[in-house]
Amino acid sequence: MAVYTDVTAEELNVLLERYDIGVLRAFKGIAEGVENTNFYLSTDRGQFILTLYEKRVRTDELPFFIGLMSHLSENGVICPIPVADKSGSILHDIAGKPAALITFLPGYSLRKPAAAHCFSLGCALATLHIAGQSFPLSRVNGLSLSGWTELQKSIGSQADAVIPGLGAYLANEIEVLSGLWPEKLPAGVIHADLFPDNVFFLNDAVSGIIDFYFACNDLLSYDLAICMNAWCFETDHAFNVTKARAFFRGYSSVRPLRPEEIAAMPVLARGAALRFLLTRTHDWFNTPETALVRRKDPVEYWRKLRFHATVASPSAYGF
Amino acid sequence: MAVYTDVTAEELNVLLERYDIGVLRAFKGIAEGVENTNFYLSTDRGQFILTLYEKRVRTDELPFFIGLMSHLSENGVICPIPVADKSGSILHDIAGKPAALITFLPGYSLRKPAAAHCFSLGCALATLHIAGQSFPLSRVNGLSLSGWTELQKSIGSQADAVIPGLGAYLANEIEVLSGLWPEKLPAGVIHADLFPDNVFFLNDAVSGIIDFYFACNDLLSYDLAICMNAWCFETDHAFNVTKARAFFRGYSSVRPLRPEEIAAMPVLARGAALRFLLTRTHDWFNTPETALVRRKDPVEYWRKLRFHATVASPSAYGF
Repeated sequence: MAVYTDVTAEELNVLLERYDIGVLRAFKGIAEGVENTNFYLSTDRGQFILTLYEKRVRTDELPFFIGLMSHLSENGVICPIPVADKSGSILHDIAGKPAALITFLPGYSLRKPAAAHCFSLGCALATLHIAGQSFPLSRVNGLSLSGWTELQKSIGSQADAVIPGLGAYLANEIEVLSGLWPEKLPAGVIHADLFPDNVFFLNDAVSGIIDFYFACNDLLSYDLAICMNAWCFETDHAFNVTKARAFFRGYSSVRPLRPEEIAAMPVLARGAALRFLLTRTHDWFNTPETALVRRKDPVEYWRKLRFHATVASPSAYGF
Repeated sequence: MAVYTDVTAEELNVLLERYDIGVLRAFKGIAEGVENTNFYLSTDRGQFILTLYEKRVRTDELPFFIGLMSHLSENGVICPIPVADKSGSILHDIAGKPAALITFLPGYSLRKPAAAHCFSLGCALATLHIAGQSFPLSRVNGLSLSGWTELQKSIGSQADAVIPGLGAYLANEIEVLSGLWPEKLPAGVIHADLFPDNVFFLNDAVSGIIDFYFACNDLLSYDLAICMNAWCFETDHAFNVTKARAFFRGYSSVRPLRPEEIAAMPVLARGAALRFLLTRTHDWFNTPETALVRRKDPVEYWRKLRFHATVASPSAYGF
């Protein structure tokens, strides 16, 4: 949520000469996207976002993300559309960083989504999953089981400084989940980071989805588990089954879930909680004090993980 | 240049119910203004900025700043216009901070303004000074001579950690300038912080002026000295007399300068450089490492101060 790299209007005007999108009217750094630097800009012909890819995004993966946004927007998903310049190029170098111009999406993210928003989110996620089935590129999920083990090893016993005993708990969870993890469920392109920050609403319905820089190929139902964790708990960490039920109903109204996907949900939700517990714990020790980004509390996801570990059947989620 | 206070769309929608400006369409934190938190928002009826006043702005001074923007915009200055709600109120409480909704100004700030931009800046500043003459409120400049002494005392010998000998140099400069400072020059409302960040351009002409939160009553020519320091030096610290000449010509084309204002310019420029050297040195030691704002280099203004101290006559500035 920061402007890591400075871009001057002079640099932007040089870039805009390559495009056929009109004359610059306004230009401001915005607090959107955790990993990249984003600018709002408007011309006499429309509104756009300029994204500079900071080092956490691998340059060789940009064609996947750029291609995915174009593909999804052509297939019924409202998401930013990469804008090609006069020569057809999308990626450019600006201020020493790879950068792309994308369309501006109306709408705004909600901090406290209600059940009706969760229903609309479910519909939008299913639409995304169906649209993703025909996307020809693929990207391995670096934050699945093998990635978890790497993260857990790099954190080691440091984790105990966050919560006493967390180091051993993480190692044990990975071992347990490795034994339980489902494999033969429907897979495809998932968003993998669909937190409320990344979903825009207008009139209480999803108006757009942003920030595809964790998108990858994995189990579709794992994406649902990530969303349930991010959307269906209250700020006091209580699970809200009404929101979960609305979310799964919305999703199923567009892509009906198979019985085996529903049956796997407790394990998937536990894994999804572990994934964010691991990255947040890792970032807790690796975010410099001087960083322009606030660290996120790992404890929130430790509580979610412990909740799912006690869930005996998907009925706890409203199925 | 940071979002210090978080505002949710839910909170904003509650606030907007008090206004007659349409339905929210987009809402983003923006990197604009050093002292306050700013959000860009658009409704189906227009674009706006929501400013939250952080603690460096004194609440009892807000009526001066708000009133000044309204007055200037009614008198030919293009600046943000505070928007009144249905009951006529401008100041509101949001997220525990005083806040105001202001109109969005098209245009963008330049990092490397050319001489033609400096000419346009001069015209705009003179228009602002003339419009300010009829503004009924006033505000003492807390960062003039007496404020400098306070700052210098609070910095003390710490300054030597920035530049060896700076502590004694600052004390001496204040003493010298106290003896030389002009008093009987035309005075009125000045912007007092008209750096390139705070001036928007469209088609190479000033399209608007923002960030009036240092505005105060002082010598009009002191405002010119602040601008000359901020606009007419190159990044290698060299003074650009072509830009200065263009700036003063632009200003004089709207409000002709008196001979005694021109004669005082070397002393005023030296004082204007000292003012920013003092605040930057102070902030150097008082900005926490964890702050979301980058500290500005005091050395830049030390070099400017030393330049002006050697200027024998205003002809050095192109007069």
